[in-house]
Parts: sequence; C-alpha cells; structure tokens
Amino acid sequence: MDSDFGIPRELSELQKLRSLYQPGLPPCLQGTTVRVEFGDATTCADPADVHAISRAFPHTYGQPLAHFLRATAKVPDAQIITDHPDVRVGILFCGRQSPGGHNVVWGLQNALKIHNPKSTLLGFLGGSEGLFAQKTLEITDEILETYKNQGGYDLLGRTKDQIRTTEQVKAALNACKDLKLDALVIIGGVTSNTDAAQLAETFAEAKCQTKVVGVPVTLNGDLKNQFVETNVGFDTICKVNSQLISNVCTDALSAEKYYYFIRLMGRKASHVALECTLQSHPNMVILGEEVAASKFTLFDLTKKICDAVQARAEQDKNHGVILLPEGLIESIPEVYALLKVIAFVSPPLATFGNEIHSLLKQGVAPDSISSQLSPWASALLEFLPPFIKRELLLHPESDDSAQLSQIETEKLLAHLVEAEMNRRQKEGTYKGKKFNAICHFFGYQARGSLPSKFDCDYGYVLGHICYHILAAGLNGYMATVSNLKNPSNKWRCGAAPITAMMTVKHWAQSPGASSIGKPAIHPATVDLKGKAYELLRVNAGRFLMEDLYRNPGPLQFDGPGADSKAVSLCVEDQDYMGRIKKLQEYLDKVKNIVKPGCSQDVLKAALSVMSSVTEVLSVMSSTSSDGQTTL
Amino acid sequence: MDSDFGIPRELSELQKLRSLYQPGLPPCLQGTTVRVEFGDATTCADPADVHAISRAFPHTYGQPLAHFLRATAKVPDAQIITDHPDVRVGILFCGRQSPGGHNVVWGLQNALKIHNPKSTLLGFLGGSEGLFAQKTLEITDEILETYKNQGGYDLLGRTKDQIRTTEQVKAALNACKDLKLDALVIIGGVTSNTDAAQLAETFAEAKCQTKVVGVPVTLNGDLKNQFVETNVGFDTICKVNSQLISNVCTDALSAEKYYYFIRLMGRKASHVALECTLQSHPNMVILGEEVAASKFTLFDLTKKICDAVQARAEQDKNHGVILLPEGLIESIPEVYALLKVIAFVSPPLATFGNEIHSLLKQGVAPDSISSQLSPWASALLEFLPPFIKRELLLHPESDDSAQLSQIETEKLLAHLVEAEMNRRQKEGTYKGKKFNAICHFFGYQARGSLPSKFDCDYGYVLGHICYHILAAGLNGYMATVSNLKNPSNKWRCGAAPITAMMTVKHWAQSPGASSIGKPAIHPATVDLKGKAYELLRVNAGRFLMEDLYRNPGPLQFDGPGADSKAVSLCVEDQDYMGRIKKLQEYLDKVKNIVKPGCSQDVLKAALSVMSSVTEVLSVMSSTSSDGQTTL
Repeated sequence: MDSDFGIPRELSELQKLRSLYQPGLPPCLQGTTVRVEFGDATTCADPADVHAISRAFPHTYGQPLAHFLRATAKVPDAQIITDHPDVRVGILFCGRQSPGGHNVVWGLQNALKIHNPKSTLLGFLGGSEGLFAQKTLEITDEILETYKNQGGYDLLGRTKDQIRTTEQVKAALNACKDLKLDALVIIGGVTSNTDAAQLAETFAEAKCQTKVVGVPVTLNGDLKNQFVETNVGFDTICKVNSQLISNVCTDALSAEKYYYFIRLMGRKASHVALECTLQSHPNMVILGEEVAASKFTLFDLTKKICDAVQARAEQDKNHGVILLPEGLIESIPEVYALLKVIAFVSPPLATFGNEIHSLLKQGVAPDSISSQLSPWASALLEFLPPFIKRELLLHPESDDSAQLSQIETEKLLAHLVEAEMNRRQKEGTYKGKKFNAICHFFGYQARGSLPSKFDCDYGYVLGHICYHILAAGLNGYMATVSNLKNPSNKWRCGAAPITAMMTVKHWAQSPGASSIGKPAIHPATVDLKGKAYELLRVNAGRFLMEDLYRNPGPLQFDGPGADSKAVSLCVEDQDYMGRIKKLQEYLDKVKNIVKPGCSQDVLKAALSVMSSVTEVLSVMSSTSSDGQTTL
Repeated sequence: MDSDFGIPRELSELQKLRSLYQPGLPPCLQGTTVRVEFGDATTCADPADVHAISRAFPHTYGQPLAHFLRATAKVPDAQIITDHPDVRVGILFCGRQSPGGHNVVWGLQNALKIHNPKSTLLGFLGGSEGLFAQKTLEITDEILETYKNQGGYDLLGRTKDQIRTTEQVKAALNACKDLKLDALVIIGGVTSNTDAAQLAETFAEAKCQTKVVGVPVTLNGDLKNQFVETNVGFDTICKVNSQLISNVCTDALSAEKYYYFIRLMGRKASHVALECTLQSHPNMVILGEEVAASKFTLFDLTKKICDAVQARAEQDKNHGVILLPEGLIESIPEVYALLKVIAFVSPPLATFGNEIHSLLKQGVAPDSISSQLSPWASALLEFLPPFIKRELLLHPESDDSAQLSQIETEKLLAHLVEAEMNRRQKEGTYKGKKFNAICHFFGYQARGSLPSKFDCDYGYVLGHICYHILAAGLNGYMATVSNLKNPSNKWRCGAAPITAMMTVKHWAQSPGASSIGKPAIHPATVDLKGKAYELLRVNAGRFLMEDLYRNPGPLQFDGPGADSKAVSLCVEDQDYMGRIKKLQEYLDKVKNIVKPGCSQDVLKAALSVMSSVTEVLSVMSSTSSDGQTTL
C-alpha cells in the first residue's frame, strides 16, 4: 500500500484547473534572501504558567519571536541570510486531514528548491508511523503534479499521529539522525504541535542537529492564540458545511415539516459551528462554550429547544434548522463525567469513566454494566436512550476523536425534544404540527474537499515560512501568518516559539490540594466576549424566528464568493504580531528621545509616565492571569 | 405563514450573481409565434397495456405527439398560432423539492408575458393543499427576483402532494373553475404526473376548460421513458452528492482506516447512485436493480461486501467507499414483504406487512409485535438488529417516502459486514486491520442546492414549453425536451400525452389467476442492458481494487465542469423524439415516391419491402411486450 502514496491520480477537469493555480507569495517571502528580525524573548499568555513551562522546556522556552521581512525593508538589526547550503528536510501529516495540507508540502518544496536546488524534501509515509519506521518518499515536482491545491492527505497519508511516549520520541530522534535531517516539519493541530514542541526540546537536549517546526493545519480551527489567527482547512470546512447547511435550510423552508438537527465536526471547541452559523443563518446553534459557561443540563437544553419550537409554531412555522457542535456533548455537565472514559483521561477526573472502562476490561457484558456502576452513574446511564448508551459503551478502546464523532448528540437531543413536544401536545400547551426531526452529521464529507483559495494560499505560504525558519536556524517554532483578513500581499510572516502558546491546566483536586497538568497547547474555545460571538448574539433572536437563511453556495474558485474569508476571521481584530512590532517601535522611539544627554525635564517626564504605564500593565497582567486559556 | 411565501430573501454574493443568469432558449421557442406540428397518434410502450389504459383514459389516450418548431422551419402541416388572448394559468409544486423547479415557474411566467402581458400566472401556495384551498400568489417579475436560478421550492412551498381521491380531484376541479384557469401546470415526479393525467381526464369528462400540463421535475431521475430523457434536479443532485462522495473517498485514502457506507436519496430506482458512481468512482455500488434481478439476499450482499473487504486487505488496503441507493432495501427479497407495510400497499402482496400494521392499529406495543406475527415474519424481524427493527415498526403511519429515507440500510449492512469480518478475523481467514465502518445518508443536504446550469436551463425551457402546450390547446400532456446531451440551442422541444408513458402492473396472484393495477407512470429503474450500466460493469473491478477516485469538485457555474452533464445522460443514445420524426420523414418519402401513377415495378418493390418490414416489426413488438416497464 505504501507504493500507492504519491502516485499520479486521475483528475477531473476542475481538479486539473485547480492544480494549475499558483498561490501568490507576500513580498517578504519573495526572492532568495531570507531577512529575519528577532523580537523580544517570549513569555506565555498566563504569567502563572511561566514556571511550569520554563521548567519543562529549559532549552526552548523564552526564545524570541521572529519576523520575516521583505528584501527592501529598512530594519537595521535584521539578520540577512544569503548563504543557503543544501539541506535535508523531513515532513509529515499528523491528525485529522485538513484541506490545504498538501500545499504546505508544496510550498516548502518550492522554497527549498528556490534557495538551493540540491536540497531534499522527504515526506514520511503514513504519518508518525512512517516517521518511526523511516518510510520516506522524496517529494519532487513530478510527484506534486496531481496534489497541488488538492484536498486530503493522500500524498503521504497519516496514521495514529502521536509522538509522545519515550519510545516514540526515541524512534523519531533515531529517524532524524539516521536520515541526517536538518529539519523536521510537523503538519497538524494542537496535539501534534505540542508533540512538535516536546520533540524540539528533546532534540535540543540530545544535541541533535534537526530543528523541529510546527505548522497550524487543522479543520477544527482551535489552534488559535496570540500568534495564530486561524488554521489551514478551517475556511474550506466552514464553506463546504455552510453550503450543505444552507441547502438543508432551503429544504426546511420548502417542505415546512421537519426540524433538522445537524452536528458538525470540530472536536471540543465550537468554532466550526459558530462560523457556519454566521455564514448560513440557521435558526439556532448551541455552542459547547455557552453550555459550559451556563452549566446547562440536558434538561435545560431540551427545554430551550422545545420553547423555540413552540414559539415558532405559534407563528405557524413548523420547520427549522439547529446546529450542534461535535464537542457539545462534552460540555453538558452531567454527561461530562461519563464521557471521560472516552475522551483522553485527565488524571483527577478519570474515576467515573474508569468504572465503565475497567468493568469492560474485566469482561462484563455492556448490557449488564449499568447495574454494576455506582448509583448516580447508573441512574444517568439508564436515563439515556438505548442508542446513545450503546455508543458510549461499545467502543471504549478506540481513539478519542473517532469516539467523539460517533456519539450522535443530534439524535439524543432530537429524541428528547420529540418526547417533550409530544408531552406538551398531549397536555395541550403545544398546538403546532407533530414534531418531526431529521438528523445529520456533517464531518467526513467536508474533510476531503478541494481546498478554498484562502486555504491554498495560506498552506503554501506557511510551507515557504518553514524554509525561512530553518534557514534562520530556529528550533521549536511554529510558522505563523498574521493580518490574514487582508489580501495575501499584506500578510505578515513570522515564527513564534511553540512554548509561548502553551498553558497549564490546574484542577482543584480536593479542598486545599490542587494538581497541574503537563504544559500543552490547549484547544482554544470560542471566546464568549469576542466579536464573532457578539455578532451571533445580537442576531440570534432574528435567526430563530425570521428564517433569514442565507446560502453562500457551493465553494467557488472564481467570481463572487471565491475570495470570501471566514466571517469570524474578518470581524476579529487580531494582528497580534503587528501590534507587538508596533510596541517595539514605540519603545525604541522612547529610547531614542531619552538618550543620555537629553534634558533633565525630559528624563523626569519619561520616568513619571513610564512608571505609571508599568504599574497599569502589571495590574492588568495579574488580573488576566486567573482565567481563560485563550485570548 | 402563507405570507412568508414569495417574499424577497437575502441573497449571498454568489446567489445574486446566479439570480442574474439568463438561460438561453432553443430557436423553436424564440419569438412570439407558436408553431406546432402534430405527429401520429401515440400508443404506450407495451401493447398489452393498451386496452387497460385506453379504457381508463377515454378522452386523453391516443392523442398525437406535438413538436414545437422554429419560425423558419419548412414544415407544411405545422399549425401556426399567432393569436394569443390573455390567459389565466395556475402552477404548483408537488412532491420532493428538486433544484431547478423555480425556473419552470419563471420560464412559464416569462413565456406568458411575452405572448400577452395581460396574462396571469397564479402560484398555488403549499402544493396540492393550496390548490384545494385555492390559496394563490400572483407570480410577478418582482416576486421572481430572488428566486431565479435558486434552489428549493420555497417560492410556493409544497405539502402532501397528492391529488388522487375523489374528494381531492373534486376540490382541484372546483379550484380551476372558480379561478377560471385556462391551464393548470403540475411540477413533479412520477406520482404527480400520474395525478396530472387523471386530472386531465376528469376535466375533459367534466367539460372543464382547464388544460392540465405536467412537468418532469424530480431529483430521483426516475421519470424516464421514450419521451423524457432526464428530470429537472437530477443533474444538480448528482453533482452535489458526487462532490461529497469524492470528498469521502479522499478522506478514506488519507486516513486508510475506515469503510464508508453511503446511502443516497432517490426512491426505489438507483439512478442517482449509478450516476454518482460514474462521476466519483467509489470502490463499490450496490444497485437495487442488480439485487432484484439476481435475487440477492441480505446474506449474499453481506458476503459480497465482506469478500471485497478481504480482497482489498490482501493488497494492504483497509479503507473503502461503498454506495447504496435508498431503494436497495426494497429490492432485497426477504425484506421486501416486511416493507410492504410502509411502501404503498399493492393489493396482492400487502398481507405480510399488513400483519404488523393491523397489530399496531389494535394498540399492540411495538416491542411485543414479533411474538404475534406468523412464524416466518417473526423470524425475519428478530434477525434484524434492534435499530432497524425500530425503524420498521415505529412509523407505519407516515408517508412512504419519509419512511424509506428513514430506514438506515447503510447501518444495517455495515452492522452485518462488521459481524462477519470479526468472525472471519477470529477464524483466521481475514488478516487485515479491524473492520471500521462509518455511515452516511446523503439526501436532504443536496435537495436544496443552487441548481446547476443544466437544471436552470432545462427548467426554464420546460416552463416556456408549458405555454406552447397551452397555446396549442393540449390537455393531459407533459412538456418534453429531447437531445438534451447537446447544447441548448440544439434541444428539441415537444409535448407527449402522459398516457403514452403509462404502464400497468400485472401480478400472478395464484396459479391461473392474475390481477392488474391502475395505469400509472411507474418509476423507471436502471436499465441493466443500458449503456450507463455497461460503463459501470466494465469498470467495476478496477473501481473496487484500484482506488481510481475522481473528484468532480464543488458545483461550479463558470469554467471547467460548469457545463458538464450527467454521464448517464451523455452515454445513452436517446433522442426518441428525433427518431420518431425521422421515421415519419421516411414514410412520407415512400408515399411520395410511390404515388399513384408510378411504375408497376416500383409499386411491387415497395410492397415487397414493406411487407417484410412490417413483419419484422410485428415480431419485435410482440416479444418486447413481455418485460420491462421502461425502454
């Protein structure tokens, strides 16, 4: 089967046209000179985590930001790299396939060859397993031919996508040494990039010459922080899903007899569901983050939906479309504990779940498990309808992502809502048509899509940045592009240490005692104070009652819609990297004005102002520390 | 809620662009003169049915074909209609919404206004229910503004979509009389067009002035016969589904660990599944028609899939994509009887199903039904996994289409295949990875799509033809376009009596006795001797083993793929209407050559040749009669 990777494929007319598309490069990546400017040493978002992270990553924590500049930029301290020896680079896909991933490989290969045609790019076949087993394919122009701007990860494939155990890390180290790699590029989401940071640290410790670079590619859109505005694939996934959601909305409005419950892939966070709502205007969306923040129970959610159905029926509307994120189920407090058996086991909370897990391991039949659980777990389990019980119990060994996507939350809620609407109808409080639900899960059918123009461009540019990172000799960095909502010739390219994106989870284990997790990049959840959520909040009432359905249409590559970007990307006022640079400029200006020799008055004024500035910032930093994982 | 119909909608950028698209008209429909040529009186495909159909439709059976001609066409007998009094026409949507339906309304409205600006088009709100209740909306340019080239049926809505009972037919007659309609246009599939024929007959009998016209619009693509090459909506549905299937194929190839079982909407016939297979090249498709022809049992199907999984595993391929048509379940012999409870009850076979139905009516709880059935029905029911049992039992009252789409055949087969693969693995005959299935149903998410260019054009042209039919004073006709695989300026426009498309079902009830059904248009099944199926057959082996996945990409409106047409439309050598005209020309030529006064030798030669021609044709006609419903 390995021989199937990288073989030319039969392309459709449209695929052929797409394979000829050449993404543009921002000015800073053009030419053959790499110009890098280093910013200040980085910290992490939460000052409370500094100790834990710096201790876990002694070699790679606190490294400076890197900005890549255009050849003509007048920055005196920029390091100019004109010497490009031939290098050997390895690259692999980790985790769920995401549209645009192939373009990272293409971008990197292109950058390598531009700077030195003798350089070599080795793709690892079958993800991390291929890395451990040192199965490689040399990436050439010929091989890329039918994969440029195409979806999927089938150029190289992927497998388990974990580089975490001592054994796995050792195998990766050996592979990089044996293959004499100058750099290893890991394409993936939060987990894979955390693994990349760990690998970088281990390599530095072991004095291995291979630099490790991470690339933010994940359809979930949850690798989001000060440095990373969005991920490769998110744009496409949202466009493909929005098309389908809109089709279902049109359908609902035509037949006027169904409520559609649509669950969207996207792991724990609800970014995909939020973005699709902003694009398609379905009647309702239930974000996991809202549920978690309000501590809604299953009963509350059911009631909320039923009230909406009833209110609509009073306006003679007996149809509707309701979106649910994949991670919703995890956010419902009473289901959360039971789910721990499946989701990755976080030490202090694993106990409830482990009850089921260990019973299954002892060979207890799933049907008789309920009677052997502690009373409350058993009561909860018995409350759930049989098909959900089965889904919870039958696959405890599979990996967490497959698991989460196989729990049919949409059916659970439709089932509970139907029961409640029937009750209300009997009782006489609901007078609409008989409630009819149709359930959908939109996941796999979007993941393999042809990438949107945005994702083609973003992936390709990130691939180029990987080369610049390696040329600058950086280890443990992630390639970043900011200012993404503007056209690609305005994009700012850089690199940030992965450790600067990490946080540490704290749990109150028992009164007085607390435990902390390993530093990691955690999935960014939807910011309930952010602008994208605000846009939803102010429109939710009208979306619910007025059927303002909007159909962005099928993914286009030309004409209207082809250059549209995610609503949530465009409304957020991000550009963190740009602002960091701006601040640096102000500080430099102050230094220049208050040089030794300046007047006493200027110095006194500077001291006075700076003292109050630092005081305000210290206070703000310490208050922001008790809180959110993400900005 | 009725007030919501026809209101302007917020359109996305792409939708706006599409709303400006102007479909072209073939030359024969241009200008303000209607030129119609009548062909010979029509019969029906099977000579054995003539008696039953002509008896049921004394006023509308045997009417001639009508061909609409360009203004410059030199056809001496063509009737030229230049006088266009203002007329009142009603139009309604019946049955499952299908992309392009709105364009029929637009085309008709446009044709009406071109020929007489005082003419009125009334849309019935909410399908047949709106017709009975005489709820109308006058279709104007303003109202059409945001519905041109858009998906769904939300301009007018639709409801139960049946005009069959005496009461319903009477209500329809009253509506047409009260509203003084010159014509009633019914947009729908096989059932609705059968209803249209019945209505035409009743109206003629009642000397009602309203002419009834049918338009072939159904996503199932099963209104296919000598006169109708394909249906409005089929092209779009296949393109949207093919995109998703291809995405899933790419996904399968990237992750290499799942088998995807995808069920496609399309009712009893497997046209959608066949077309999608020809576009996307998944590993396997199981057509209902193949299963019915080979009398495959559930066990046979499971074995067939398992053998394929095993053969692929031997080549180290542990992934795949398998398509199943919605109607497959009906085609499996042993499930067929049980399903009769849900599908429309055909008298002689209803007994098994009716067992369940009547027990439910008596208030027997679904769980205890099995014990009260006859032994064989009970055994079959108990063999099925619980979720399928529930789906079979719990909704016996809902309409057959909803029912069929809610039986999760894909899960049933995945379940059976998984059990068998696990057995083979234990036994040691299967040595591949653990079998992992993911199930999808693609239906509602395609139905509301923006229509493809083909469906926009086809729907619009059919709308125009409706006006020509009405101007020619025809009743009980369906608007037809032939030569569809060529560009629209080569399309041939006409009209065929709906009765000419009917067949009669015969059942052997008991030895010696047989019973016949009502004449109706029956869904055309996939022709296992046709070219489209042959194309599948010769490639099936390679599709199965070689992963020749092909991604037509998302529906495009410009550039490559925008003008592509269904593979099954293009490979079939149809143009029946063109050939009928060609034959007429030959017969006319013979008449001209062998005019009274010609030589004895010429006459003798003509008689000799014609005698053998008629003999050959008689023999062929009688053998073709015992067989297929469709050509």
